[in-house]
Amino acid sequence: MASAGLSFGNPLFAAYAAYASLVILKMFFVTGATAYFRYSRGVFANPEDVKRRLKKGAVPRLDHPEVERVRRLHLNDLENIPAFLAVGLLYVLTGPSPGVALWHFRVFTAARCLHTLSYLAAVQPWRALGFGAGLLTTISMAVQVLMAGTL
Amino acid sequence: MASAGLSFGNPLFAAYAAYASLVILKMFFVTGATAYFRYSRGVFANPEDVKRRLKKGAVPRLDHPEVERVRRLHLNDLENIPAFLAVGLLYVLTGPSPGVALWHFRVFTAARCLHTLSYLAAVQPWRALGFGAGLLTTISMAVQVLMAGTL
Amino acid sequence: MASAGLSFGNPLFAAYAAYASLVILKMFFVTGATAYFRYSRGVFANPEDVKRRLKKGAVPRLDHPEVERVRRLHLNDLENIPAFLAVGLLYVLTGPSPGVALWHFRVFTAARCLHTLSYLAAVQPWRALGFGAGLLTTISMAVQVLMAGTL
Repeated sequence: MASAGLSFGNPLFAAYAAYASLVILKMFFVTGATAYFRYSRGVFANPEDVKRRLKKGAVPRLDHPEVERVRRLHLNDLENIPAFLAVGLLYVLTGPSPGVALWHFRVFTAARCLHTLSYLAAVQPWRALGFGAGLLTTISMAVQVLMAGTL
Repeated sequence: MASAGLSFGNPLFAAYAAYASLVILKMFFVTGATAYFRYSRGVFANPEDVKRRLKKGAVPRLDHPEVERVRRLHLNDLENIPAFLAVGLLYVLTGPSPGVALWHFRVFTAARCLHTLSYLAAVQPWRALGFGAGLLTTISMAVQVLMAGTL
Repeated sequence: MASAGLSFGNPLFAAYAAYASLVILKMFFVTGATAYFRYSRGVFANPEDVKRRLKKGAVPRLDHPEVERVRRLHLNDLENIPAFLAVGLLYVLTGPSPGVALWHFRVFTAARCLHTLSYLAAVQPWRALGFGAGLLTTISMAVQVLMAGTL
């Protein structure tokens, strides 16, 4: 019984948990990338941040191309990763074929890593491919959860 | 026992799962709307996206009114939908009256659809009404979860 | 058995649920703060909002320092709180030491409250401290979930 529900005794749940935490750590990598660009470029959004840097004449800046790029990447993460986290958990409970489910988790995680790296490197169409693959995987799970549920 | 917890054998969980996936698919509709406006208006945020469109003289643009409208709508989704997804799941486990709980899920889902459509159509006060109803529903669930929990 | 899983009979889950709803209500406090600054300062992002205020000559504005400050704070919440909600739930299921787990939830909640208040008050390094403590707590839980899961 336990092996079909939300417990680490259920191999599919254990896989979901691992990929969920991986993709969250990947998102925090973007948090770190934002911090890296802000500090290395000396670009901060708030007056109190600029003041601490002790640079004469520094002003808050909201339009630095590299920092704004990372922020757009981060926002795209927010548009996709929490949805995956919620839908993936519900999907585990629909009792899917373990092999198929595992590939949903793997493709999503790989797709978001591809998206992150190609956004930072500014290369297309890899970024679009990563974004699209992640989105389609989540939609596939959401449709299966919707069919298993009752409105 | 199973019918009171997180399994599709529990009718209330099955309802939560269905509304959760609906509201996620609605959010992805906004993702699609952003793509539609970007492509149809030729408005992209990154230099590498503009380059691929093969339009001479095209530059990245961050201030197109229609695109920015969809982006604000999307951000409002992010401020409300992940909170609903998390709180709704915990709320199912507090053992609420099924009828009352079902209406929480329905009102939230309908409210976010109203918010989305009225944001796109730029009509008030419907947008504010949809936003407020969704927020109040989530607060109601969060308060009930807080009372069932222990700090 | 029930006391080790996702049910309010499990004291650790009951604690997670309480802190999760607290932190969501805190996030909605920021939603309220945005509304407060928008109304009190008369700063709205959409033409249809300005029209309803019945002020002659009012135009949508996207660069008011106080409103943009609250919006940056809100975005930082979105970058951290949904991740905590997902990882915290999975972390409960890894069977951690209850005392250690409880402090993870408490530190995260206190850290996000500190971050919110010090962002609104524009004081550093308290904001950075709140942000960092919340992030480290979530990373700690994510790593433990990753180790309990299977890729």
